[in-house]
Amino acid sequence: MEKITSLAKRRGFVFQSSEIYGGQSGAWDYGPLGVELKNRIARNWWKEMTQLHDEIVGLDAAILMHPRTWEASGHIENFTDPLVDCKKCKARFRADQIPPECVSEKKCPECGGELTGVRKFNLMFKTHIGPLESNDESNIIYLRPETAQGIYVNYKNIIQSNRMKLPFGIAQIGKAFRNEIVTKNFIFRTCEFEQMEMQYFVKPGTDVEWFNEWKKRRWAYYEKLGVKMERLRWHQHGADELAHYAKDAYDIEYLFPMGWKELEGVHNRSQYDLTRHTDYSGKDLQYIDQDDGNRKYIPFIIETSAGLTRTLLMLLCDAYDEEKVADKGNEDDYRTVLRFHPTVAPITVAVLPLQKKDGLAELAHDIRAALREDFATDYDQGGAIGRRYRRQDEAGTPFCVTVDYETKENGSVTLRFRDSMNQVRLPRAELAPRLFQEIKTYKRTK
Amino acid sequence: MEKITSLAKRRGFVFQSSEIYGGQSGAWDYGPLGVELKNRIARNWWKEMTQLHDEIVGLDAAILMHPRTWEASGHIENFTDPLVDCKKCKARFRADQIPPECVSEKKCPECGGELTGVRKFNLMFKTHIGPLESNDESNIIYLRPETAQGIYVNYKNIIQSNRMKLPFGIAQIGKAFRNEIVTKNFIFRTCEFEQMEMQYFVKPGTDVEWFNEWKKRRWAYYEKLGVKMERLRWHQHGADELAHYAKDAYDIEYLFPMGWKELEGVHNRSQYDLTRHTDYSGKDLQYIDQDDGNRKYIPFIIETSAGLTRTLLMLLCDAYDEEKVADKGNEDDYRTVLRFHPTVAPITVAVLPLQKKDGLAELAHDIRAALREDFATDYDQGGAIGRRYRRQDEAGTPFCVTVDYETKENGSVTLRFRDSMNQVRLPRAELAPRLFQEIKTYKRTK
Repeated sequence: MEKITSLAKRRGFVFQSSEIYGGQSGAWDYGPLGVELKNRIARNWWKEMTQLHDEIVGLDAAILMHPRTWEASGHIENFTDPLVDCKKCKARFRADQIPPECVSEKKCPECGGELTGVRKFNLMFKTHIGPLESNDESNIIYLRPETAQGIYVNYKNIIQSNRMKLPFGIAQIGKAFRNEIVTKNFIFRTCEFEQMEMQYFVKPGTDVEWFNEWKKRRWAYYEKLGVKMERLRWHQHGADELAHYAKDAYDIEYLFPMGWKELEGVHNRSQYDLTRHTDYSGKDLQYIDQDDGNRKYIPFIIETSAGLTRTLLMLLCDAYDEEKVADKGNEDDYRTVLRFHPTVAPITVAVLPLQKKDGLAELAHDIRAALREDFATDYDQGGAIGRRYRRQDEAGTPFCVTVDYETKENGSVTLRFRDSMNQVRLPRAELAPRLFQEIKTYKRTK
Repeated sequence: MEKITSLAKRRGFVFQSSEIYGGQSGAWDYGPLGVELKNRIARNWWKEMTQLHDEIVGLDAAILMHPRTWEASGHIENFTDPLVDCKKCKARFRADQIPPECVSEKKCPECGGELTGVRKFNLMFKTHIGPLESNDESNIIYLRPETAQGIYVNYKNIIQSNRMKLPFGIAQIGKAFRNEIVTKNFIFRTCEFEQMEMQYFVKPGTDVEWFNEWKKRRWAYYEKLGVKMERLRWHQHGADELAHYAKDAYDIEYLFPMGWKELEGVHNRSQYDLTRHTDYSGKDLQYIDQDDGNRKYIPFIIETSAGLTRTLLMLLCDAYDEEKVADKGNEDDYRTVLRFHPTVAPITVAVLPLQKKDGLAELAHDIRAALREDFATDYDQGGAIGRRYRRQDEAGTPFCVTVDYETKENGSVTLRFRDSMNQVRLPRAELAPRLFQEIKTYKRTK
């Protein structure tokens, strides 16, 4: 993990937030390569969910929601961590993360001093809206701790405006905020994070079938992304982990450097959410089933919920490789390479002139100009060609185009593949179609 | 504006936030068509700025920044509205938005009661981070009121990780929050909004030239987007409007239904921001100019700052058209059409079978399946073909493909153009290349 964190910082994937002020804990900034990676992960998921599914539409609900939402969802009451304080050394702990005897004997695990009793601490960030800067309860508003509720409160609007019929899904990508006491493992657990969620509304009785179907689809998604499948596993929530609203719940876990950790949840949320919002809003949220004699009922919800920033960390870990290499003319004998799928790689193709002189730089600029409308390109003319390949390997760039003296003569270029380091020679005019083809047919081999 | 608001709601572009709870003022939710439009505007701007410019890279900084940032930026001290309260009727007003004599005579403009003195009200949303839920000043944190500061605090990190040389730019799209007292004009002024900002760092002395260059580029951008250029104008900030940090500032204003309003600002922010962050952080933020004998200096900053959600409103207004039509077989004699540029239209191509029966629906599904990997598609088989064209016109879909009995016979389809309502017949296999071509060469004519 240290290597990945260091690479991420050095190459501009992820920076500590507000670093010049000593950093802001719980938040991270995504640099030039990081924001491209994040955007592409988001687009890829979005395309998979909306563009490639007939019956799934998108939504982007606000972070600031009506506070009644969080009464209905149960977050105001239940979204808490149990905290204890040491009266002596003033340290603060999550009661469920220190040895149980410390809690029962009220003894600080660090200094042995006396602990306070367990207090519930709500994880929602609270602020005030409107002109009253006060402790007036009437204008309290929360930063959403999850994006899902924005989907539930809009479900009826979407049925009406888009003439949706069950089963159908609503997909959303957006930020959520949790006042986590312990933020750790780089960008794995943070106070500010992004979720990619899809809520799938189904007829009661078909929920188990759809739950299994979505488990299959989400597993297949990671396969398509080129993730090392032996590093993924299912974890079913036991009776002790299952949320009160859930009928069944599985997590996809990934083998991060710090161990198996949750990457995505596929949950059968039953009729809980829409029933609660019906109760709290007084609105009729039943679905009218025209294919079943206008029967009215509350649909079941199957949720697939993945972390965008967490997926980014997963892909960094999964793509990271160090490899002995033996290509000649190269000062190093190993390379660091990020084996990103071309659809998520921050840079798709880098154009490199063998030399700056003799018009090769101009020619390379010209070739880049022809590619940039369709691809995320980079240009690099600094240093030996071997070093430049290494720099692109480390950024995860799947394709490099080298412009040399033969290009001047006959217009052909070298296309170099990141994973195999193989090179092929082809005419300039074939470059763009070949790249489209390579991206579509990419299979990870290492 | 009423027509646009109503269309936006009815077709699922924009919903009132948390509508089932009576709505949350200052926030809006983007429905299926709205989120696609918003995403495409964002992608289009992002491509223009980063992919098509050698010297501009992206960033995505956190919403939660270190609070010292807002001391350095001046927001804690100066980002305030002047408020007065009526002691009698308890109404609250912005002192600069009621008649001056009301303020000087301390008389309520509504009930004539006595007004309080003017108080400064800071527009930043304030919350607490960390486990202390208290009024402890030490853990106060703000929701960023603008995205620009995230760029300034990362400027040195980006130079180092990406080996940037002046002049260069950093582009960012993200949410910002302002506790606006008066939110109005639909999504024009809201508490939660999204900005698309690019900060361009230049050598002192070249700032005027770059300022003019960016004015040109941003103007050309709207032309490329197909915006009605007669509805755009420049507004130069007068001495009374110019921010204390700005050397010069122009806004691009758009003629909204409620009048000329700011759409984007192009500002010469001088050395103000980096100088302030140097002072407050104690870090050396000077640029070392290797092309000028390693001279050290603070760069000037030229900013282009546009609202994403405001651009969406502008494009809705700009694209909106009602038109008398006279095509036969159609029950209406006028249509509502959104003339979006194909690169931002929520749906690129809709596939419509003339009839459900005789295998036409299956054939249409098949044609859609072949298009959906590359285009945002829709499928509609409900109702008369004329009505279905109207529905797509209203959603701004630039292309419709109609599948009829001839398709069954010889594989040809009809491609119908939204703006002209012209139709051409072409073989299925030519559909995708033709669409790519039409998108690239689109020119708005109405």
